[in-house]
Amino acid sequence: MPLDRNQLIGKEAILLLLQDKDQLPERLRQLNWKFCKGKVGAMDGKKVVAAVETAAKNQGIVKPDLYRETHALYHAILEAVSGVTRGSNQIGTLLRTVGLQFVIVRGNPYQDKAEGEWLAVVLYGTIGAPVKGLEHEAIGLGINHI
Amino acid sequence: MPLDRNQLIGKEAILLLLQDKDQLPERLRQLNWKFCKGKVGAMDGKKVVAAVETAAKNQGIVKPDLYRETHALYHAILEAVSGVTRGSNQIGTLLRTVGLQFVIVRGNPYQDKAEGEWLAVVLYGTIGAPVKGLEHEAIGLGINHI
Amino acid sequence: MPLDRNQLIGKEAILLLLQDKDQLPERLRQLNWKFCKGKVGAMDGKKVVAAVETAAKNQGIVKPDLYRETHALYHAILEAVSGVTRGSNQIGTLLRTVGLQFVIVRGNPYQDKAEGEWLAVVLYGTIGAPVKGLEHEAIGLGINHI
Amino acid sequence: MPLDRNQLIGKEAILLLLQDKDQLPERLRQLNWKFCKGKVGAMDGKKVVAAVETAAKNQGIVKPDLYRETHALYHAILEAVSGVTRGSNQIGTLLRTVGLQFVIVRGNPYQDKAEGEWLAVVLYGTIGAPVKGLEHEAIGLGINHI
Amino acid sequence: MPLDRNQLIGKEAILLLLQDKDQLPERLRQLNWKFCKGKVGAMDGKKVVAAVETAAKNQGIVKPDLYRETHALYHAILEAVSGVTRGSNQIGTLLRTVGLQFVIVRGNPYQDKAEGEWLAVVLYGTIGAPVKGLEHEAIGLGINHI
Amino acid sequence: MPLDRNQLIGKEAILLLLQDKDQLPERLRQLNWKFCKGKVGAMDGKKVVAAVETAAKNQGIVKPDLYRETHALYHAILEAVSGVTRGSNQIGTLLRTVGLQFVIVRGNPYQDKAEGEWLAVVLYGTIGAPVKGLEHEAIGLGINHI
Repeated sequence: MPLDRNQLIGKEAILLLLQDKDQLPERLRQLNWKFCKGKVGAMDGKKVVAAVETAAKNQGIVKPDLYRETHALYHAILEAVSGVTRGSNQIGTLLRTVGLQFVIVRGNPYQDKAEGEWLAVVLYGTIGAPVKGLEHEAIGLGINHI
Repeated sequence: MPLDRNQLIGKEAILLLLQDKDQLPERLRQLNWKFCKGKVGAMDGKKVVAAVETAAKNQGIVKPDLYRETHALYHAILEAVSGVTRGSNQIGTLLRTVGLQFVIVRGNPYQDKAEGEWLAVVLYGTIGAPVKGLEHEAIGLGINHI
Repeated sequence: MPLDRNQLIGKEAILLLLQDKDQLPERLRQLNWKFCKGKVGAMDGKKVVAAVETAAKNQGIVKPDLYRETHALYHAILEAVSGVTRGSNQIGTLLRTVGLQFVIVRGNPYQDKAEGEWLAVVLYGTIGAPVKGLEHEAIGLGINHI
Repeated sequence: MPLDRNQLIGKEAILLLLQDKDQLPERLRQLNWKFCKGKVGAMDGKKVVAAVETAAKNQGIVKPDLYRETHALYHAILEAVSGVTRGSNQIGTLLRTVGLQFVIVRGNPYQDKAEGEWLAVVLYGTIGAPVKGLEHEAIGLGINHI
Repeated sequence: MPLDRNQLIGKEAILLLLQDKDQLPERLRQLNWKFCKGKVGAMDGKKVVAAVETAAKNQGIVKPDLYRETHALYHAILEAVSGVTRGSNQIGTLLRTVGLQFVIVRGNPYQDKAEGEWLAVVLYGTIGAPVKGLEHEAIGLGINHI
Repeated sequence: MPLDRNQLIGKEAILLLLQDKDQLPERLRQLNWKFCKGKVGAMDGKKVVAAVETAAKNQGIVKPDLYRETHALYHAILEAVSGVTRGSNQIGTLLRTVGLQFVIVRGNPYQDKAEGEWLAVVLYGTIGAPVKGLEHEAIGLGINHI
């Protein structure tokens, strides 16, 4: 069965971030969806990964010692990084820097409850030269089953 | 000089698409920004590129016979495709299909008017197996000077 | 908790394929692990994906109508294709052809039962010019939580 | 003329590693094939490359001061790394760490002796977060003429 | 309208570098084309990017504080790096080193003056192991509208 | 021992193509170097590969039935394609078309004769939209031991 148009996990995650909201919509809170937000500025890809992983673990979005949850999260982060870097997953090694906000959402976006929980990671902000103002926007979204 | 936080071209393009609006915000219309919207479903990467290019030319976002504008648009589209496919830019060759909406915005997102015009291309929708419902969301954003 | 060295899902999958065995080792059968085997020759990446997906669904390794299982499988297949093509995921578009055997295994390779089920997809065979004999071996392994 | 099914260089290299053997099969020793084994743990792609190159040179698999042999080896290593990383060739820059064993084999896998010598490099082990246990298996195989 | 065969910006840039000339051809000087040359040796991709950017800014090829010019230059550099590394954009992280000369040319290569100015970046030199002599040649060309 | 600055195989191949020469320099003919030239226009990556392979075999640059020579050539072609496409190796699947000339050179560019023969493949021409004039230049160089 298809995605439920009222609970699109990627769209909700993007809107939470871009509209700078501090709460999930009421309908999602009733479904017990979880989310957290954070920021990271870095020239170093691994700092971006670490910032998102740490937030997800500290905020209880994933269980820190369960590898299957870390694995699901890691690939969702990488896919989001891939959108921000438009494919290369390289930042500082190519003399770029990023200033990003992120949102992580965990919930079930499908009509069929058997589809279980999924994870959405959004990264949005700027990428550019390591000089203030020499930058443009970028976004990335990673979605994975968890 | 930095991006103007009131006229972020990528963010405006994403919100136009996700909030399903038919107009640019008043402040952007007064700045003479242009935009258009469209849809494309395909297993074929080149159909996605063609759909966005055709819309941009038909709606007067870029001049059809000026290569520098086509070139700017093409690279913005490719970067957006790269977000949707999370790096590989491959769709049907790996047995995936996409159902996408797109928005193209042309305007000046920097405080300094000398920065001139820029282009934002957003693709948002679903990617998955060529079977109804076996799909999840994806987004891509490409930004280029024009 | 770490991988159980007696039930390494990737290693077992590779040995099943290379040693041309028709059964899982006794210790894995007792754990209720599942597997299937198949072959595919193609110049077309999507045929490789389709052959593995079809086998996995027909042999009951994944549930055909549960997207989270198809999604887990799809990414495991892509990772295996990436090993065979050594990064590009392109076959016929670069005038290569492949003759592959594949094995899919579903089981729990971790000591901690909470880690649940994982999937391993192995592709092994030859890749080369579309001329008999102008080819060398290649292998790819994709592992995903399911 | 095709590959000789009794002396498949990639398959032999993988089985040497996975079955933890210390000798080539008798039929390959009579053909004067060479091999060596080693281990490397790293968050740094260049340490993996260096470990394999050093072993190959120290064990006499390739001539250290002949660039064509170093070149053949280097590309075989990169292809193996590409299988382990499933395309990106990035390890620590994306906050991953690897614990790998490797085998290098040099021999002639073709029926036609004119095909001369080839090199197979296999990397097998685990890849994952820099935390004990948060990891899964990976394999990569690179084959090149030498 | 097509490229003007007498003022091909990529070809002129490559010949300036390979023929080790210190001047643009007379016909290009009359058109007010600009160029500069430089050298960089590095194991670090970001040093290559920085060397070319610094030369372009110091020699007046691009305006240092106009982001749209830096952005055009950056993407031209990345495309040239991609030719040198043949796709991966990775140097030291894979234990390679480069010794490169570069040429940057700014001019209008199209018959139609409305096409405005374009930028060509050429990198040519050697890539290989960090050992003298264990290397071969490589070239990369990036072209962008500016 | 290093590259011989008087017989740089990549530079010679590029100059043969760009200067539209029909002969190798006298010093290279005395060394018995071989070369051939050709053209190919295509939206299809595999046609580019096929055109270069066919020319190399028909003109006696590589032996058609010796896989090690085909293998060396294939990887040199792919590396050249990678320069032309700046990484993705995709042409028509992303709605691009190419019009290319190519040169293949076989010779020994190292001072040490033990380094044996190497192959250089250069592709140079235009890449762009499938519309006359909407295109810019591109170059790619692949070098391999043979």
